[in-house]
Amino acid sequence: MKVELVNPFLAAAINVLRTMAFTEARAGKPFIKKDKKAVGDVTGIIGITGQATGSLSITFSQRCIENVVGNMFGEKIEGITDEVRDAVGEITNMISGDARRKLDEQGFNLKASIPTVISGSGHIIKHISPGPCVAIPFETDSGSFVVEVSLEEQDSG
Amino acid sequence: MKVELVNPFLAAAINVLRTMAFTEARAGKPFIKKDKKAVGDVTGIIGITGQATGSLSITFSQRCIENVVGNMFGEKIEGITDEVRDAVGEITNMISGDARRKLDEQGFNLKASIPTVISGSGHIIKHISPGPCVAIPFETDSGSFVVEVSLEEQDSG
Repeated sequence: MKVELVNPFLAAAINVLRTMAFTEARAGKPFIKKDKKAVGDVTGIIGITGQATGSLSITFSQRCIENVVGNMFGEKIEGITDEVRDAVGEITNMISGDARRKLDEQGFNLKASIPTVISGSGHIIKHISPGPCVAIPFETDSGSFVVEVSLEEQDSG
Repeated sequence: MKVELVNPFLAAAINVLRTMAFTEARAGKPFIKKDKKAVGDVTGIIGITGQATGSLSITFSQRCIENVVGNMFGEKIEGITDEVRDAVGEITNMISGDARRKLDEQGFNLKASIPTVISGSGHIIKHISPGPCVAIPFETDSGSFVVEVSLEEQDSG
């Protein structure tokens, strides 16, 4: 999986959180995950097809998403409510859309499914893929989140 | 969302569990979910694009998946291990593949992403879609599972 495929997702995560939630996210060093698992409290997942097949996930700790969604709506958020789940779906969609737009400009066309949001304290996410999974850890002033991208390039578009 | 789009997923779930895991699954009546949430212990999710965009999920109770995977491997399974997660990914892939093959014969082309598997006691799955989400409840001799399909037809393929 090429770094050119990962960087647009990293940039999109920063951009979407800044624009939608006035939240500065600092990216740590992306790394290839061997065991392809992440643990968190709420996760948005979106499936990807096209010139590569795979999946994108974004997993938040409860504290981080309460702050992000609180900033989006200008009110104090406590707990992972239905409103929070919808916001995570929207954030996932926007990161996917922003990254795919940039990749499309480079001639690399990806399509995205509809997002699914999973909530539950300390759930585990595993991308089932023959190819590698790249994890990008992020820090905000109110906790951490991780973006995972697993893409396998197709022989034909 | 047309019933013709749902039935192949229902048939595929029965077929895959029978073939791979010697498990007879009895389908209950499919229903349209208003709140689009399911609760379970392990879930496989796959994104769908093409002539419709959406997602497919299959959510098992722990007892049900222990039995299904135990049958697949011919050994007693306890707990949701990495082996179980991989098996749920494989089952999700096969249900998606079987259903899409049947739909393709009817001239309806869908593509699928790579599956993601979520585990964690009592996690909640929510499909974020403008369209409806159809849930199909299943019973086996060792507990229940639910297949959810959320597909929004596209104007152009």
